[in-house]
Amino acid sequence: MKMTCAQIAELVGGTLSGDGAVEITGLEELVLAGAGDLTFIGDETHAKKWADSGASAALVNHGLDVEAGERVVIGVADVDLAMAKVLERFAPPVMQVEAGVHGSAVVDASAKIGAGVGIGAGCVIGPGVVIGDGAQLHANVVVMNGSAIGAGCVLWPGVVVRERCVVGEGSVLHAGVVLGADGFGYRPSPDGRGIVKIPQIGHVEIGSGVEIGANTCVDCGKFSATVIGDGCKIDNLVQIGHNVRIGRCVVIAGKTGVAGSTIIEDGVTIGGGCNIADHLMIGRGATLAGGSQLMNSIPAGEIWAGSPAQNHRVALKEHVAIRNLPEVMKKVRKYLKDLD
Amino acid sequence: MKMTCAQIAELVGGTLSGDGAVEITGLEELVLAGAGDLTFIGDETHAKKWADSGASAALVNHGLDVEAGERVVIGVADVDLAMAKVLERFAPPVMQVEAGVHGSAVVDASAKIGAGVGIGAGCVIGPGVVIGDGAQLHANVVVMNGSAIGAGCVLWPGVVVRERCVVGEGSVLHAGVVLGADGFGYRPSPDGRGIVKIPQIGHVEIGSGVEIGANTCVDCGKFSATVIGDGCKIDNLVQIGHNVRIGRCVVIAGKTGVAGSTIIEDGVTIGGGCNIADHLMIGRGATLAGGSQLMNSIPAGEIWAGSPAQNHRVALKEHVAIRNLPEVMKKVRKYLKDLD
Amino acid sequence: MKMTCAQIAELVGGTLSGDGAVEITGLEELVLAGAGDLTFIGDETHAKKWADSGASAALVNHGLDVEAGERVVIGVADVDLAMAKVLERFAPPVMQVEAGVHGSAVVDASAKIGAGVGIGAGCVIGPGVVIGDGAQLHANVVVMNGSAIGAGCVLWPGVVVRERCVVGEGSVLHAGVVLGADGFGYRPSPDGRGIVKIPQIGHVEIGSGVEIGANTCVDCGKFSATVIGDGCKIDNLVQIGHNVRIGRCVVIAGKTGVAGSTIIEDGVTIGGGCNIADHLMIGRGATLAGGSQLMNSIPAGEIWAGSPAQNHRVALKEHVAIRNLPEVMKKVRKYLKDLD
Repeated sequence: MKMTCAQIAELVGGTLSGDGAVEITGLEELVLAGAGDLTFIGDETHAKKWADSGASAALVNHGLDVEAGERVVIGVADVDLAMAKVLERFAPPVMQVEAGVHGSAVVDASAKIGAGVGIGAGCVIGPGVVIGDGAQLHANVVVMNGSAIGAGCVLWPGVVVRERCVVGEGSVLHAGVVLGADGFGYRPSPDGRGIVKIPQIGHVEIGSGVEIGANTCVDCGKFSATVIGDGCKIDNLVQIGHNVRIGRCVVIAGKTGVAGSTIIEDGVTIGGGCNIADHLMIGRGATLAGGSQLMNSIPAGEIWAGSPAQNHRVALKEHVAIRNLPEVMKKVRKYLKDLD
Repeated sequence: MKMTCAQIAELVGGTLSGDGAVEITGLEELVLAGAGDLTFIGDETHAKKWADSGASAALVNHGLDVEAGERVVIGVADVDLAMAKVLERFAPPVMQVEAGVHGSAVVDASAKIGAGVGIGAGCVIGPGVVIGDGAQLHANVVVMNGSAIGAGCVLWPGVVVRERCVVGEGSVLHAGVVLGADGFGYRPSPDGRGIVKIPQIGHVEIGSGVEIGANTCVDCGKFSATVIGDGCKIDNLVQIGHNVRIGRCVVIAGKTGVAGSTIIEDGVTIGGGCNIADHLMIGRGATLAGGSQLMNSIPAGEIWAGSPAQNHRVALKEHVAIRNLPEVMKKVRKYLKDLD
Repeated sequence: MKMTCAQIAELVGGTLSGDGAVEITGLEELVLAGAGDLTFIGDETHAKKWADSGASAALVNHGLDVEAGERVVIGVADVDLAMAKVLERFAPPVMQVEAGVHGSAVVDASAKIGAGVGIGAGCVIGPGVVIGDGAQLHANVVVMNGSAIGAGCVLWPGVVVRERCVVGEGSVLHAGVVLGADGFGYRPSPDGRGIVKIPQIGHVEIGSGVEIGANTCVDCGKFSATVIGDGCKIDNLVQIGHNVRIGRCVVIAGKTGVAGSTIIEDGVTIGGGCNIADHLMIGRGATLAGGSQLMNSIPAGEIWAGSPAQNHRVALKEHVAIRNLPEVMKKVRKYLKDLD
């Protein structure tokens, strides 16, 4: 793949400084970039490193002091957006599963396979499964009894979809995802000496345009469904407990866990490594900072952080107080001693 | 599946108010329930929402103010227990692997397969493996050399059991579980410039009636075994390190990690997202709250919480002190200034 | 496997006390060891438990007060190193995949398979893949288009290597590892009402002698590569984000996450359960304690800890101050009240 700087400037609607004929063959961060690479500069800190970069060209936010010199600078309004546009052009073709059922796959006779579906080597498709048109199941994917995979979905290798799950159109399940494993519900045995499983009879409903990261788990409902709404983006190694209900376009970063029956409304953003307790409500558009322990519900639109999490303004005050604590305590101890 | 309210009242030994002939076709939480659904009310907060619920009937703890009105109320002593009983009746039949070895599975000639065992498509069973009567291995499960799976176990798709592991009767390994991967042990190389692997020659021993959640990992012992006792229930994405020894009926929620050689005694409960250091002892019946960082041993029966974790009473005092800190510090600074 | 104590003393270069003819058939921790077991004693605490141990022999650090009595004691300079040497002798042969391609594996005609490579049952090898001499791919491993696996690598069951990844010589990927799944990158859609995926066009480069734990995920680069250097050891259930760059011989314990574009230099040690933010730098030889939340870069050689993490000396002061806080606040409140 290659593009000239002039072509790139046109693509992103940017202002070209320097030789538009310079050819770009790759994209790279400022510090690592070399000849033939296009890089991007979004703030003052990076602007200062431009002189030492080996990049042939840079996308630069308007207003930053970056001179083209012998190289090429393309001024833009939003460097992230511009870079995303260039990435789309440089993206290699996504690997496609050949349409049809691979000879080593095992597909139950009662499964309904749509037009143009590709089912890769080693896949196992259970009774009553429905696979929508154009869906791609890579190697060793397992879809169990009665589940439905929407048109255009992509299931990467080793994905397991348990019984009666529903996945909407165009959703992507990365390698090792497990949908619909039993929720974690037990009660003491009648004699009080053991633990008895509470049946988990529900299923999982994933919306359209959802992306779920590698080795992430979404448990089935205890009853009815665990629900993930349209357009949600969930990272790797996330745990979604039984009967959690997630609205539209929620973003959850890696290694976060959401315990049972918690409700997350539309447009919420959750950082990585959070632990979210059960039966909470996270209101529309709220944000939870990475690494937080959430033990209370978050009102709509608020930003929370910390352990236990609280409104970020309160958390910040507390944080500053703790940072100053050793020094203040020293003084206080001295005065207390004097007063004694 | 459907039951009348009279049948449900009889099943749970409850007190019926309203029309016993009303048919129930599903179970649902109070807020989401609709016509034909049975719901449950365990506390005052939920009792207040009964009027607005679309449920046709509710299991209600004795003593709560919930009127049947036009609908049905079934009074019970323990609503969770009653609900579990109803769930058992409404549970769909668990999907069974057909008895015998699927044509696409690969079973070593030296493996001993019990009566009525089902080995699904794509399974790979190594030399010397023993599978007990009636065990169910779903698609793409791998059991390696010399491991033994007890009678009646269920291994969901994609489970990997490494060499020489032992799993007791009636245990369940959810999709993506890895038993017996190498423990994490290294030492500096003789020249001090690298890292050398310490051989991990042990195995994993899982008791009877154990349940292990999706994508959870239990490492093999450095020597002898990593042990999980009878009746333990371990959630998804949990990490159990080498030579950890867990007693009977221990419950560990999702995303918790237990580092090497820590001992957890019978009946311990551990919340989700905890990090537990190595070589500790968690005494019989102790509880560790979710999200805790455990760096010290817990005496039997105590409840610990926090980061680093400590007895919950101490942790609570500290927590309250921190919450009040910004305000108190403001005052203190003022007085210190005045005194200066 | 069995060795006499005399043979073991010679192997580890230790000083034998007691009967060198005593045969050792296993290795075990002090408290659990029985007849025929060799154990190890590295400190005073363990030295005191020697009398009550059932072990037949012990490796003991010079200078500890441990008498052989009727049993055998082998004095050594470094008990961990000595034990590692014995472990190597007692290690059972590592299970080998039979050389050649198993009949149930699917290998694309364009893949180049080296000499002596073993490709197990159910493996799927894509177009253009290169597998180096002597590599071992256990059951149900998937290696996708254009990836290269170095000579002598071991890929345990269920590993997934996505497109265009490179793994150096002699590296080990434990069961369920996912290399090269898409990085987690999105931007608001032009209408502001949804989220659009940013193409993740890079790949993953793993060095030589690297070990990656079960169910760990290493995402592909947004552009260029996510890099893990030679000799790194990464534990189970770790998340490595897109464009992270890790140097040589870095050790990362279980359940830690490293967000996008963070750089980790040579010889860094990171404990378990850490959350590390994006775009940070962790300098050469630095250490981050387990359970830390890292939000700032760490200078070379420093030890950091806490949430948010800071230099461990500062963190310790803060920790002590917090522990004393409830008591001091009580006094302060009293004095403030008196002053009022």
